[in-house]
Amino acid sequence: MSAEDVATRLPLVGTIATSGFTTAYPKVIPVAYARRLAEAKASGQRCAVNLYTGASTGEELDGELARSGALRKRLPFQSTPDLRNRINAGEIEFIDMHLSHVAPYIEHGILDPIDAAIIEAVDVTDDGRIYLSTSSGMSPTFISYASEVYIELNTSQPVELKGFHDIFLPELPPHGRPIHINHVDDRIGVPYVRCDPAKIKGIVVTDVREKTPEFKAADDTSRAIGEHVLDFILHEIAKGRLPKNYLPFQAGVGNVANAALSCLAQDSRFGRIRMYTEVLQDSVFDLIDADKLDCASTSALTFSAAGVERFHRDIDDLRARFIIRPQEISNNPEVIRRMGIIAMNTALEADIYGNVNSTHVLGTQMMNGIGGSGDFARNAYVTIFMAPSIAKKGAISTIVPMVSHVDHNEHSTQILVTEQGLADLRGLCPRARAEVVIRKCAHPMYRDALMEYHERALAIAPGKHTPHDLARAFEWHLRLREKGTMQG
Amino acid sequence: MSAEDVATRLPLVGTIATSGFTTAYPKVIPVAYARRLAEAKASGQRCAVNLYTGASTGEELDGELARSGALRKRLPFQSTPDLRNRINAGEIEFIDMHLSHVAPYIEHGILDPIDAAIIEAVDVTDDGRIYLSTSSGMSPTFISYASEVYIELNTSQPVELKGFHDIFLPELPPHGRPIHINHVDDRIGVPYVRCDPAKIKGIVVTDVREKTPEFKAADDTSRAIGEHVLDFILHEIAKGRLPKNYLPFQAGVGNVANAALSCLAQDSRFGRIRMYTEVLQDSVFDLIDADKLDCASTSALTFSAAGVERFHRDIDDLRARFIIRPQEISNNPEVIRRMGIIAMNTALEADIYGNVNSTHVLGTQMMNGIGGSGDFARNAYVTIFMAPSIAKKGAISTIVPMVSHVDHNEHSTQILVTEQGLADLRGLCPRARAEVVIRKCAHPMYRDALMEYHERALAIAPGKHTPHDLARAFEWHLRLREKGTMQG
Repeated sequence: MSAEDVATRLPLVGTIATSGFTTAYPKVIPVAYARRLAEAKASGQRCAVNLYTGASTGEELDGELARSGALRKRLPFQSTPDLRNRINAGEIEFIDMHLSHVAPYIEHGILDPIDAAIIEAVDVTDDGRIYLSTSSGMSPTFISYASEVYIELNTSQPVELKGFHDIFLPELPPHGRPIHINHVDDRIGVPYVRCDPAKIKGIVVTDVREKTPEFKAADDTSRAIGEHVLDFILHEIAKGRLPKNYLPFQAGVGNVANAALSCLAQDSRFGRIRMYTEVLQDSVFDLIDADKLDCASTSALTFSAAGVERFHRDIDDLRARFIIRPQEISNNPEVIRRMGIIAMNTALEADIYGNVNSTHVLGTQMMNGIGGSGDFARNAYVTIFMAPSIAKKGAISTIVPMVSHVDHNEHSTQILVTEQGLADLRGLCPRARAEVVIRKCAHPMYRDALMEYHERALAIAPGKHTPHDLARAFEWHLRLREKGTMQG
Repeated sequence: MSAEDVATRLPLVGTIATSGFTTAYPKVIPVAYARRLAEAKASGQRCAVNLYTGASTGEELDGELARSGALRKRLPFQSTPDLRNRINAGEIEFIDMHLSHVAPYIEHGILDPIDAAIIEAVDVTDDGRIYLSTSSGMSPTFISYASEVYIELNTSQPVELKGFHDIFLPELPPHGRPIHINHVDDRIGVPYVRCDPAKIKGIVVTDVREKTPEFKAADDTSRAIGEHVLDFILHEIAKGRLPKNYLPFQAGVGNVANAALSCLAQDSRFGRIRMYTEVLQDSVFDLIDADKLDCASTSALTFSAAGVERFHRDIDDLRARFIIRPQEISNNPEVIRRMGIIAMNTALEADIYGNVNSTHVLGTQMMNGIGGSGDFARNAYVTIFMAPSIAKKGAISTIVPMVSHVDHNEHSTQILVTEQGLADLRGLCPRARAEVVIRKCAHPMYRDALMEYHERALAIAPGKHTPHDLARAFEWHLRLREKGTMQG
């Protein structure tokens, strides 16, 4: 079947769910579908499409559908410029969800039902076993709940991906049972998604390659952040507060988290680690090259062009090291709390009391979404948030009096790190937190101003438990908007 | 041993951990201890005591120790006026924690080690089996980690409490294993806490009765809130989104939650339910009288004087209905997510986007603490927050443009209810959330002003995803402080 054939069978008004947690999204059907939607719209037909995915996708899907003007609702995460712009223009409804909530919302029937699932795969058998490509994400649940399933069989993805996946979906309440994953490398499922063959309405073969992200080489700032994190982990081991062979690491998507892991690979004080995360990036190869990776559980692989090449070359060796799981499992509170994860995620801004904003610029503009950070932060053994202390050459302090949006609150943030230093907030009251955050994490150019805010707040606030001066809590954000800088 | 004997053995500078999750706290040793601390302080000795408990306690413990002037640090929850005042005066450090975090913080060695645990019990055997009174809370963990253990054997508590408890503590990472509770009434432990007899340094016998709280009879407002919640649950069952025999209910402490359960007891449309919660209040008897309770799992019992009398009278029947668990289990993310809980907790204020403040008056003054609400809200099947739409005869709108503190954010709040109505926020983007919250939940006297804020924010905000006017986001709170009312 051609992509255009499938596109004609997809609804003008309805709900589409696709594979894709970073790169493994369908790449030709969506382009044809977007073209059809744009034409239908131009001819005056009503078009309104909801798009569900595992997490972020790319231009051929989010970009094309956003530009078609037919996208109405999008969940649970995105990171494509044209889609982001339309969300922030108020044209597209974006539901910014904890990734672990997507499956229950679909299974419980909270969201609109799925008309069609479009899934990238490397193989499909006659009896309906679908072998996914480089992510599992929401695909097993989408396949199970969609009325129709379309497969994009991508021949640029190695068929040797068979065997990486461990597909297991937990039972729903009231039939819930324990998920028997006690260790990162426990496999409890099968390597394919089972689907009623009658539901598979079309298969499109393509060899379109994924667009690969580039990771910036670690700069001094991200290296300094990484070093602080590593020193902290060694300190915790020395204190007997972490096992000698560590606990599994989770690292958020992006350059800072990638750099932290690369630092770990280069650090002779560290031995072999395990990862239990939602996305593996190029840094995993640094770990392997330094003989520092036992095994890694993830929901997706996102490599640079060089990383993809390396992955294809070593794929038979890597099958014993990597496990790709549905996000119901990779982000599951039960498994995360049981194993005890060292969670490292990125903050857009943090305030002096440890509240973290990881989604909203100036409290109003969506960046990408909360993604899985809340699933990990809320249930980890140690919850670490990382950010450079300043942005835009110092016009922005990422440490502010009060964050303009809260994604992770003071109760969940345990460790806050910038290139300036690391603040251990566990067991501290808000006043003590403020002192350590300002002293350890703030950039020197903003330190006095933050301390001044804290002291003024302490003097005038009706409650001294969490001192704030509500009349001036957002003064810095307002100044940034008016004058282009937070500096007074 | 006398309470005074024990008091002389307790440290002037150190850490005390006690039983107590609501009422089951020690009642005579702390009074003697507070007297000793006050005297030592008066004679110029340095006194600085950290106090850890399960959750709230009462006057004989929190009140006395706060007034002694020797309390330095308190966690994880409190609700006693003199203690609260000193916390808000900045004199005592209060660590406001998710209740499910207390055990890991102690086990991992994050908090100062416990010098002495003081535990209310109904029996102790020669071989060190301690039978707890009306709560389990943190007691098993405190007993295990404290250097010394003192028992307050309270003869006013019925020895028939033996058998109510199910004491099981999960293994720590990296040795975590599944917790095999699939149903509310699954018992996986033993009815006592095992303790090395050599560690039990003293037993004080007392017959001091607990001070019982009074629950206000449901007023029109809390009844209306309860009715909206019940209508919603029936609606969800009709839609096939909740099982016909419901899912287990969790209800926060206080009059509103108590009233919601009482409404359920009186409502002929409802059958028998199960509860999986952290505190059982008098409303559980309404459920029993209406033959609407299958079984109830809790970490504590908190009854009025009449409720206590009833409990003592029927104790042999109730043993088959009630299970008292450690808070590591009652508040465990694994068990909560697996069973699928209907979580009903109270908000102090909520904003138009669904962020909830449940702790801080005007963003700065601590009320009681987050308690277990985050443990339940973050992992429940349905997360409901309830509040009257106005307070202080309308001087305060509990629905505000932006909450002054965030305990539960937009990602976790699914249902918001006031006496005005119920807003189902699931699957809605922030703009759509604002409209439904204003229309359904806000009091008519504040509805126009909220819509005006939302529309102005939409017009001027740099991002239309979550429109805010940061310059005026706290205008209502500031007006309340200056003029005593939020009304413009």
